[in-house]
Amino acid sequence: MMNYQLYLATDRGLLGQKDLCTSVEEAIYGGVTVVQLREKDVSTKDFWEIACQIKKITEKYQIPLIINDRLDIALAVDAEGLHIGQEDMPMEVARKLLGPQKIIGVSAATVEEALTAEKQGADYLGVGAVFPTDTKKDAGHVGLEQLKQIKAQVKIPVVAIGGIHVGNAWSVMETGVDGICVISAILCQKDVRKAADTLRKSCLRLSTP
Amino acid sequence: MMNYQLYLATDRGLLGQKDLCTSVEEAIYGGVTVVQLREKDVSTKDFWEIACQIKKITEKYQIPLIINDRLDIALAVDAEGLHIGQEDMPMEVARKLLGPQKIIGVSAATVEEALTAEKQGADYLGVGAVFPTDTKKDAGHVGLEQLKQIKAQVKIPVVAIGGIHVGNAWSVMETGVDGICVISAILCQKDVRKAADTLRKSCLRLSTP
Repeated sequence: MMNYQLYLATDRGLLGQKDLCTSVEEAIYGGVTVVQLREKDVSTKDFWEIACQIKKITEKYQIPLIINDRLDIALAVDAEGLHIGQEDMPMEVARKLLGPQKIIGVSAATVEEALTAEKQGADYLGVGAVFPTDTKKDAGHVGLEQLKQIKAQVKIPVVAIGGIHVGNAWSVMETGVDGICVISAILCQKDVRKAADTLRKSCLRLSTP
Repeated sequence: MMNYQLYLATDRGLLGQKDLCTSVEEAIYGGVTVVQLREKDVSTKDFWEIACQIKKITEKYQIPLIINDRLDIALAVDAEGLHIGQEDMPMEVARKLLGPQKIIGVSAATVEEALTAEKQGADYLGVGAVFPTDTKKDAGHVGLEQLKQIKAQVKIPVVAIGGIHVGNAWSVMETGVDGICVISAILCQKDVRKAADTLRKSCLRLSTP
């Protein structure tokens, strides 16, 4: 049973002086429930090396590791799953190569994309960008209302992504989604562990910012 | 039994107005014995789509298709093999994921890299750049003498790459290598089929330019 509540996607470009492995470990201490490793413009060797390092950490804490886009890396490090966007490997090809046990998540920005992905066997959906974001400039805009509609029409878990932070996390959770995916709201914060812990509590409404 | 004699690597950036599929088919008519699909800076979806198209052509003519770098694409289209550089997936990881039947080629620029790749189970080596080339600016320079040395020290087939054209192909073959790998010497020529045919004959010394 997957817990999608606080889903961390990585972006090494946002880390500044911080080390990715340390940041991921701190974020897990703070309460992150899933880690997605997302690397762009790196060699396959570099992606593989960082994936090996992150896998050691996620395994230690029994947190599922999802690899963005690259099925070869997911296979190479025996990650728990793969996340594919609309410009990545088609869902049916990915499922055939990964088998039925691995988690496959699909990015969706419309009800149609969401229903197609569910039909093709996606295990969860990443829906966004819910709010405008600098991290992924090519992402289409999806408001809270559409997020709610998508969630209402699919049976698989929905994780909301895009511009989510401690100030709006609860408004996102109120749409009924299963979790929030954040990058900068955790990785760009001075105290990564505390940022994850505060976000986790916001999602559960254990604290109000 | 693989025939590495005239190995075509692709580069869509060099094609100008020409279509990649048409060019590959023409090159096969001209005598190309192996096709390596090499795509940089494209989405996984685009790479997969073009690989599906090229696979149909290579299958039709029973020419092996090798995918550059991306093991996910090689698996997705059931290509005959994968070519990895020193910045790609490590050889042992690639072999584990592809199994013993698939061809794995490794780029090598020194005797040491060549011996390591052979020891790790590479099926062939791509050695270069033999001559300076614009196609792959980051490639280290390997002269004919070093090429000869590498060939003498390994048992697996050696394909020479880098700046090879009809004017120097025979000098390369004289080092004892099993074949030449070209990109622009075929793809950038006005008559792709004729260019491949002339190169093939040069390799066999059936004609002197």
